[in-house]
Amino acid sequence: MKRNLSLSVSKILLFLLPITSFNGWAQTKPVQSPIDVKVAQLVSKMTLEEKVGQMAQVTVDVITKGKDRFSSFEPVELDPKIMDDVFNKYKIGSILNTANNRARTTEQWYKIISEIQRVGKGRLNIPVIYGIDAIHGTTYTAGATFFPQQIGQAASRNLELIKKGAQITAYETRASGIPWNFSPVLDLGPDPRFPRIWETYGEDPYLTSEIGKVMVKGYEGDNNDISSPFHVASCLKHFLGYQVAASGKDRTPAFISDQALREYHLPSFKAAIEAGAHTIMINSGLINGVPVHSSFKILTQLLRNELGFKGLVVTDWGDIENLNNRDHVAASNKEAVMMAINAGIDMSMIAYQYEPFCNDLVALVKEGKVKTSRINEAVTRILTLKFQLGLFETPVTNYKDYPKFGSKEFEDAAYQTAVESITLLKNNNNILPLKKTTKVLITGPNANSMRTLNGGWTYSWQGEKVEDFASKYNTMVKAVQNKIETKNVSFIPGVSYKMDGKYFEEYADQMDEAIEAAKNVDAIILCLGENTYTETPGNLSDLYLSDLQTEYAKKLSATGKPIILVLNEGRPRIISKFEPLMQGVIMTYLPGNFGGDALASILFGDENPSGKLPFNYPKFPNSLVNYNHKPSESRSVVEGVYNYDADYNPQYEFGFGLSYTKFEYSNLKLSAKNINTNDMLTISVEVKNTGNREGKEVVDLYLSDLVASITPDVKRLKGFQKIDLKPGESKTVTFKLDKKAFAFINADNKSVVESGDFKVSIANLQSPFTITN
Amino acid sequence: MKRNLSLSVSKILLFLLPITSFNGWAQTKPVQSPIDVKVAQLVSKMTLEEKVGQMAQVTVDVITKGKDRFSSFEPVELDPKIMDDVFNKYKIGSILNTANNRARTTEQWYKIISEIQRVGKGRLNIPVIYGIDAIHGTTYTAGATFFPQQIGQAASRNLELIKKGAQITAYETRASGIPWNFSPVLDLGPDPRFPRIWETYGEDPYLTSEIGKVMVKGYEGDNNDISSPFHVASCLKHFLGYQVAASGKDRTPAFISDQALREYHLPSFKAAIEAGAHTIMINSGLINGVPVHSSFKILTQLLRNELGFKGLVVTDWGDIENLNNRDHVAASNKEAVMMAINAGIDMSMIAYQYEPFCNDLVALVKEGKVKTSRINEAVTRILTLKFQLGLFETPVTNYKDYPKFGSKEFEDAAYQTAVESITLLKNNNNILPLKKTTKVLITGPNANSMRTLNGGWTYSWQGEKVEDFASKYNTMVKAVQNKIETKNVSFIPGVSYKMDGKYFEEYADQMDEAIEAAKNVDAIILCLGENTYTETPGNLSDLYLSDLQTEYAKKLSATGKPIILVLNEGRPRIISKFEPLMQGVIMTYLPGNFGGDALASILFGDENPSGKLPFNYPKFPNSLVNYNHKPSESRSVVEGVYNYDADYNPQYEFGFGLSYTKFEYSNLKLSAKNINTNDMLTISVEVKNTGNREGKEVVDLYLSDLVASITPDVKRLKGFQKIDLKPGESKTVTFKLDKKAFAFINADNKSVVESGDFKVSIANLQSPFTITN
Repeated sequence: MKRNLSLSVSKILLFLLPITSFNGWAQTKPVQSPIDVKVAQLVSKMTLEEKVGQMAQVTVDVITKGKDRFSSFEPVELDPKIMDDVFNKYKIGSILNTANNRARTTEQWYKIISEIQRVGKGRLNIPVIYGIDAIHGTTYTAGATFFPQQIGQAASRNLELIKKGAQITAYETRASGIPWNFSPVLDLGPDPRFPRIWETYGEDPYLTSEIGKVMVKGYEGDNNDISSPFHVASCLKHFLGYQVAASGKDRTPAFISDQALREYHLPSFKAAIEAGAHTIMINSGLINGVPVHSSFKILTQLLRNELGFKGLVVTDWGDIENLNNRDHVAASNKEAVMMAINAGIDMSMIAYQYEPFCNDLVALVKEGKVKTSRINEAVTRILTLKFQLGLFETPVTNYKDYPKFGSKEFEDAAYQTAVESITLLKNNNNILPLKKTTKVLITGPNANSMRTLNGGWTYSWQGEKVEDFASKYNTMVKAVQNKIETKNVSFIPGVSYKMDGKYFEEYADQMDEAIEAAKNVDAIILCLGENTYTETPGNLSDLYLSDLQTEYAKKLSATGKPIILVLNEGRPRIISKFEPLMQGVIMTYLPGNFGGDALASILFGDENPSGKLPFNYPKFPNSLVNYNHKPSESRSVVEGVYNYDADYNPQYEFGFGLSYTKFEYSNLKLSAKNINTNDMLTISVEVKNTGNREGKEVVDLYLSDLVASITPDVKRLKGFQKIDLKPGESKTVTFKLDKKAFAFINADNKSVVESGDFKVSIANLQSPFTITN
Repeated sequence: MKRNLSLSVSKILLFLLPITSFNGWAQTKPVQSPIDVKVAQLVSKMTLEEKVGQMAQVTVDVITKGKDRFSSFEPVELDPKIMDDVFNKYKIGSILNTANNRARTTEQWYKIISEIQRVGKGRLNIPVIYGIDAIHGTTYTAGATFFPQQIGQAASRNLELIKKGAQITAYETRASGIPWNFSPVLDLGPDPRFPRIWETYGEDPYLTSEIGKVMVKGYEGDNNDISSPFHVASCLKHFLGYQVAASGKDRTPAFISDQALREYHLPSFKAAIEAGAHTIMINSGLINGVPVHSSFKILTQLLRNELGFKGLVVTDWGDIENLNNRDHVAASNKEAVMMAINAGIDMSMIAYQYEPFCNDLVALVKEGKVKTSRINEAVTRILTLKFQLGLFETPVTNYKDYPKFGSKEFEDAAYQTAVESITLLKNNNNILPLKKTTKVLITGPNANSMRTLNGGWTYSWQGEKVEDFASKYNTMVKAVQNKIETKNVSFIPGVSYKMDGKYFEEYADQMDEAIEAAKNVDAIILCLGENTYTETPGNLSDLYLSDLQTEYAKKLSATGKPIILVLNEGRPRIISKFEPLMQGVIMTYLPGNFGGDALASILFGDENPSGKLPFNYPKFPNSLVNYNHKPSESRSVVEGVYNYDADYNPQYEFGFGLSYTKFEYSNLKLSAKNINTNDMLTISVEVKNTGNREGKEVVDLYLSDLVASITPDVKRLKGFQKIDLKPGESKTVTFKLDKKAFAFINADNKSVVESGDFKVSIANLQSPFTITN
């Protein structure tokens, strides 16, 4: 922003933020640590084939007995003959995933991975590194503790709880013998159409960055000591700009300017790299026509040279093949391998066809098309990680050493996170909390489903096997029955999902009976949303909640009974056609195995909701504007004949969420009204609980740059704190802002602070200040 | 695209197309023409204030008597006192628009403009230049001939008819005393949400370019001799990338890579500049955070230095103020003026507040913030245009010299264009053409409206005054009544638009009566669509056709009577919820004053439809993919656990359109299967009319580059010809492709041809070829 009439032709750049300023592992790694020495010695002994093998990762189905490479017989058994080919002939150094897309017990994991390590170590005794998607808990382990998916964790705004979740997941992943977790997702999630928005922390770069940092520390430990048997190596994903495809569909082309890439998509990855993350996974999509897996500019110039990332770079599933098969930028698999490795890939998540990858890469090195130095660099990073993880000493951790796996302590943390994530969006006439004597009908396709509470990446990829593993936990129906007298709870689905169909397939299921039953209760708890999905199977073509569920809501409303709409969905499906008919609206996101219990506690007042939306909830399918939009997207009518305007119309805005108590804000104070660029600005505000019950409140601070050389966002989140207030209690909340907050990325792709007028907003309070220099 | 295993690390650039290769007026202008001499002499005599005044344009309401600057009293009268301020004090050199947003007779125009020229010429006798939006005919002139809007003209694919339309519009604009037409729109229209897609030639760059060229020649004459009293100066708009805002809403930010800008958005402007267009208007929106009106990169580096454009650059409405008021990149109006003029603007379409523009610009020059050389450059271009237009000799052309204004000859051309634009999308069991003895109900909100046939920019900005001027033409109802026996035609609206409301406001209007009446007819002609709009008032939030119209279609279908759905709309509103219930579907776009007649002739078989969709007609609101999408947007399921796929699901695809006869394609021949980059490839195909009536067919040639360093489009239109075939007749159609067709824009933003495999597709025929070097 700039002040009145700062009339220089070129903008005054008050401050050019240093592009690389690391304080994490990435930079402090000494040049010749003991591990470096060991790695160098090892690399010097390796053949080209052995090196290439280290760069290869296959899915475990490949090495099991099964009818083909893509599946396994049950019970799962490793196939010695195939293992011989994979490990002894092709020297493959990494395995991922579970067999048959199905969770396993910790004991089974121990057995499988022990055997892999026994066979896989080869002549040089190099351990295999096993990686897994442990997304909201240890996805593929039976009995693991499942937290709300990332989007719900973002709604909780509680960094302590989020960190604890990561610690528990690290513990339980190691309890499964696995040291490498493909998590967290640090993609920005600004597109409600995208099938993985629930795997993000929502649409705000600052919120995503703050959570990303604690996730890395939760997984890797405060000092990123991943040799600890209770820590795992984290894997930031998906570098970079993955979730903003123009079509809104997974793995399709995105168009992102360099300025926007740095302003919105880069901060979370930069922050997590500075927090010491050891590995990173690449965006499976395309930016500006170029698949990211072939982009030297992103994988080497940006990630290595500019951000200084020293860790391991792994592809996403089959993405080297995709350069040829899908995106047609390579004329053959061999050319695809060349492009990706030269762009900066260290390890290929090949998945299935390891022979062409290994053979092509060996040939490319021999032909001089890929330099040996590039191979050595990649292998050095891979071996370094294996040493850092302690795999040479302990190739597999033993589940018997993990007594807290699936414990009450862990479950309580998951329950608490679910409680704090759930977001109350509407509460007409304080219909909530319901009295425990209320007679209720609980209904809808999500009412009695553990599967929909969890979402994808739960016991199986698409979440379709949840019911096989989660019978001990409570669905919403069961939790409500546990909460109040069972005789006061009736359940009829009304609509059900087709459990062996696509996520959007559903059918009327006793709808007439449910409507009839509604007439005899005091209130209806209507649980709508989506069945489970992720990635391309979760693509959508229409953001409206389904016609059938909409029709059902309208019919229930026609009974005249008050309806509490409970949303259980991975993305904000549009409800505007019936939202006005609902007396209460509660967003649960995908709250995990304790989501039913958490919801019941909130419905009946044992818990006070405190979640805040991490995205704009849209009202219409073709009006998908984020909270931090540009001024032209929400301006009022201009004078004259051509009365241009812009209609900004979210159903509920980012940061919105009600409580059962009331909070009042006052005394917004700034330490100065005029500061210089290098000054710290201290901002305080008083928050008082003026209601009659204890509650938690998220205090969000927004900064607006009033004029800037790149059209400024109307506001940007630059601070948040979650506080707990007893009835009548006040607290003063203090924020400190510096040039990092004031800066934005300019047209030259530099982070700059421009002098001029700014505005701080907290709740309904605002205060201006000026930066000069 | 490349062949198997061309393993060079950097792509082989076979051919680098020269960036600037002009053959039009832009380059052949001699250094010192007689006009140049006159202009230079004149400029040397001008004061700074006079020069700045030449760069200013205000809307005519400003200089009329009225209650304020934004409106005029009727009858319109110029205000001598204000004119004195505008012309004598501020020396303003250009006026635009009509008064009170209302069409005028040619006589009124003559009177108004004569008076403006009398007062406005100032001490140096410099004529005022009057500009107008004559979009599909002379928008603001009563009695003018109205053609289909651009989108319909694109559907006709008939370049001769389109050119004739431009010639007629030029004639009738000059008949209105106006020499400068803000047309054609050469924006790509790939976003069906955008409120101005109907002002484009659709989603394809090649089609837009080919039409753009003939439009320029139609307006300006084959030699671009705009001194002719039958030609006007054209104004290409809106340079550049205007219609792809991320939100889909008018005048909101777009994100476009340089590669995509050049691949998709630039070709039409480049072609039209090479065709000699004299003026260009700037995109009112923002690209990558920067308002285009402040972009030196686009206005000077790209447009001037690279494309070599020598003509006049004018802003869009109020867009210099917008840098301050709307986009907040300038802290004051003065800074906004500085940014825009220094970026390369020659004339500001100020619209209302001329004092700050003129005062600020004078001050900026005096302060050295804007160079005098920049001012002289702009003024030179403006005066050159005035000389070229012959305004010094004939400041206003006289309507009496234009006997063909609104003549039968012109009307016939408009009718014929409407006939060829209308696109038959569905014809189950050959229900069409209807027999003239058929008893029909014609119904729907668009059935009896001249307004909806025309769309916006017709007698008024939003089209709301059409009915005041178009009573002599035939609505669909009247045209059908003229076509068959009146007693066989019943009309009940069923749904009507609120004529004084927003474009999307509508209400049930005798719906029950219409449904009752439907039971007594043989067929229903259901005329649905949109009411009129343009620009921000036409923004939408939901691409589905309205709920009420959808409900109405379903109810009519329940009668069991066959329904011909006639779509009359500016953009493809989604019909998938009832399309399966329709036996026939006809797209009329916005066909103009003769659209009703054209439709009736097609419905009852007097004309054979030949229009082809100029865009993908989407089936779902969140699945808006263009025909020339990337491979990842339409791939099939991949093998393995993660069964990624992509669902490409348009309702009807670009290029689709049925006929009442049948065409068969055979003998696709290529002159060679292996060519070098500089070779010409000749392609021929035989087309036979195998049906039993004469018909026109558009033969489209698509080229696919099978592998390329930027993920290639699945196919790209590279040729089209419209032919006429009698029953049983065959014709051989020949295309010639050269490096211009084979090339694409690479990651370095260069136009290149890469060696390798290509594919030609015409209708159901395909043939491969290879480019080597």
